[in-house]
Amino acid sequence: MDWLSINRERSVPYIRQVYVGIREAIHSGKLKPGEKLPSTRELAERLGVSRNVVMEAYDMLFAEGYVSGKKGKGTFVAEGAQLDRLPDMPKSRRKDASVVDESVIDFRTGMPDGGCFPRGLWVQCYKKAVLNGPTRQFHYQPAAGSAALREALAGYLRRARGIVCDPDCIVVTNGAAQALAISAKLLLGPGRAAAIENPSTREIRSIFASYGGHIHSVPVDRGGIVTSALPDDPRVRMIYVTPSHQFPTGGVLPIQRRIELLHYARSVDAYIVEDDYDSEFRYEGPPVSALYELDPDRVIYVGTLSKMLSPSLRIGYAVLPEPLVENFIMEKWISDIHTHSLEQEALAVFIDEGHLERHVRKMRHRYRKKQQLLVKSLAEKFNGNIELFGTSTGLHISVHAPHLPASPEPVNVGGVRLYPVQYHVFGDERRKHEWMFGFGHLSEQEIVEGVRRLPGV
Amino acid sequence: MDWLSINRERSVPYIRQVYVGIREAIHSGKLKPGEKLPSTRELAERLGVSRNVVMEAYDMLFAEGYVSGKKGKGTFVAEGAQLDRLPDMPKSRRKDASVVDESVIDFRTGMPDGGCFPRGLWVQCYKKAVLNGPTRQFHYQPAAGSAALREALAGYLRRARGIVCDPDCIVVTNGAAQALAISAKLLLGPGRAAAIENPSTREIRSIFASYGGHIHSVPVDRGGIVTSALPDDPRVRMIYVTPSHQFPTGGVLPIQRRIELLHYARSVDAYIVEDDYDSEFRYEGPPVSALYELDPDRVIYVGTLSKMLSPSLRIGYAVLPEPLVENFIMEKWISDIHTHSLEQEALAVFIDEGHLERHVRKMRHRYRKKQQLLVKSLAEKFNGNIELFGTSTGLHISVHAPHLPASPEPVNVGGVRLYPVQYHVFGDERRKHEWMFGFGHLSEQEIVEGVRRLPGV
Repeated sequence: MDWLSINRERSVPYIRQVYVGIREAIHSGKLKPGEKLPSTRELAERLGVSRNVVMEAYDMLFAEGYVSGKKGKGTFVAEGAQLDRLPDMPKSRRKDASVVDESVIDFRTGMPDGGCFPRGLWVQCYKKAVLNGPTRQFHYQPAAGSAALREALAGYLRRARGIVCDPDCIVVTNGAAQALAISAKLLLGPGRAAAIENPSTREIRSIFASYGGHIHSVPVDRGGIVTSALPDDPRVRMIYVTPSHQFPTGGVLPIQRRIELLHYARSVDAYIVEDDYDSEFRYEGPPVSALYELDPDRVIYVGTLSKMLSPSLRIGYAVLPEPLVENFIMEKWISDIHTHSLEQEALAVFIDEGHLERHVRKMRHRYRKKQQLLVKSLAEKFNGNIELFGTSTGLHISVHAPHLPASPEPVNVGGVRLYPVQYHVFGDERRKHEWMFGFGHLSEQEIVEGVRRLPGV
Repeated sequence: MDWLSINRERSVPYIRQVYVGIREAIHSGKLKPGEKLPSTRELAERLGVSRNVVMEAYDMLFAEGYVSGKKGKGTFVAEGAQLDRLPDMPKSRRKDASVVDESVIDFRTGMPDGGCFPRGLWVQCYKKAVLNGPTRQFHYQPAAGSAALREALAGYLRRARGIVCDPDCIVVTNGAAQALAISAKLLLGPGRAAAIENPSTREIRSIFASYGGHIHSVPVDRGGIVTSALPDDPRVRMIYVTPSHQFPTGGVLPIQRRIELLHYARSVDAYIVEDDYDSEFRYEGPPVSALYELDPDRVIYVGTLSKMLSPSLRIGYAVLPEPLVENFIMEKWISDIHTHSLEQEALAVFIDEGHLERHVRKMRHRYRKKQQLLVKSLAEKFNGNIELFGTSTGLHISVHAPHLPASPEPVNVGGVRLYPVQYHVFGDERRKHEWMFGFGHLSEQEIVEGVRRLPGV
């Protein structure tokens, strides 16, 4: 075994070097089945290591079946341990896609202000939950989510949204995205159909599409989904809407359409998935009710902490019609057993102590200021030659700006990253010169500077 | 509108009471389309509330389209806001399934000692990560997981398991369960097949089954999966194994079978999913290598923090062959965008500061002591009339105890909850009198008392 040597420069323990050296020799056939290995004393001397090193390496080989033999009789290479080739080590190849050009001002939508995350308060609540909770919180948890959090969410929904629901109808998910994915898994599939707003977040559309079935695109106007254009298709099992603040065009669905939507859902026996992604930030007029309130038997209400606190928490939830609860929980269980629970407990504390509503109130003021600044800057930039939509609510506005060039995809122009509504349009419909401006994550200076950099006029 | 009144005992704000009262009257048709509402002054006087209350309630109704009208001209019920019936509120009905009878000693498997979770250290690391991390950690994160954590895991795998892998081939998931579910989604489906150990965790089998395709059950003996019984089926795309500690029977797969398994996987062009769920706790003999080491191109290595730290963290990961990485990340993204990231950052700190390996070392001693006590207690209880398997590794042992009654399902007997191997057997095979004893979560007193309570002899 002259080929075996110890490299004293490497950080790999000697035992492992001996073990790997012999193992690879067996794999490659350099050491043949039945061949006798040198005694531990002999090999240790030759390699200049302690005998224990070789004995432990032999023990590893023995435990894994590479060698056989008994003490005193010698150690022999076992049968059947040859492998055709040892594969190459995989090489690093992917670029880090998350590296962002910091000099570009990015009007991406749906981004809360990460700089305002209440780090101290949040850590306090986490600490409270983790240090004081019962031992069983470190075991597996119920698939539906923390009981404390579901209670706290039910209370929050009652106070903030006027939604009265049984905490047992709430299932906690990894962000709203998982709630949507599970809804799709339950309701869609071959032979079924969904009706979704058009335009509608492209990413969500692709989530739905991945579960099979036909997808109908229903047009959207200033009032949200055009209910008179709902498809005449009995296969429809799910209707996806954003009634509080249509994404991306910003409309608030009027009550007449809400009721038509419910009648339609009843007539084809479908469920409405209400994605209430940012209605907490309402700047103009009184709060708008949730569709869920009108018919808790037909509506899956999907909420999220992503905009109120942070998307990196991955805590969302669905409020479900009773007949769906059990299957939804089962699908959740199959996906990942349950949502990470220590942060659920922390969030329950955070809500129960009133921090969430205080934080949302504070952020609503902040976002309103940012939004007003954005609106003013845009109006000035384009001399009023611009139409604004969806300014009542949320972390983005939509604009029709004839002086801005058209683009089907997000683009970088002159140090600004812009997002066209067209990107979220499915099919032939043209929404030229319509753009979304997300502002939640931008500072006031960035908003002003970003608008200044815009092309046009 | 005599039917409208304010209930001063309720915690519901007056504005909301007025709003809801009128809204429901419109839904029910009590207020007809075109009907004029009383003036705000008039209604306020009648209800004995301030005029602002009624004005705000009217504003809400107006914003949502229930009423129309202009200041001075009066407020009218709008068309199309009638709903057939108001559904009943859902009632609480589900019992809390997580309520556990504390007096029963539960020999459930796969449960780490929640009482030993390093609460203080963990909170410290979390605090460090959350307070000191960059603002962007509160935005959306890459679907593959935290870069810091993937680096830390690669380092851990190298030191603890001898696995050398590119952090770019690691994807962080919500526990091992999600890694298994995504693997199944990628590899299975109609027209395809999987080969899995029999017995094998029933829950995992049901996860695989939910993705469609045929499932072959391959028998298991003391050495783990019987490779000579692998199915002659070219549709096999995935082979699921637990080579370090077969679940539930405890065998360690010898190298000859490992190599046969790899040859088989290559011949049918399948991937091996190696579930390395508790090999960190090895009590006897030298560490056993991962199958992944032998052929990183054929093996998806699935690891988890559930046994080392806590299943409630829901942090697991897959180390993937390069050609699978991109699709795996896409499926992860579709499932839930990414895994919650603040605890990922905390875990990266926890690993980098050496806490994980220290904790595992400490727990290994503790679990070994518990296991020895369990083995001794069982041997005494049955006068040695018992066979033990899988004692080298992990948080459970398997026993063949002819004096214990047979059962196909977990049972409560005399204040003990017991888990038969049979529960995880698919098909006709009989494993009578084989039982698993999980001990990780039990105290030494509970182990002794639990064994004392066992029926038999």
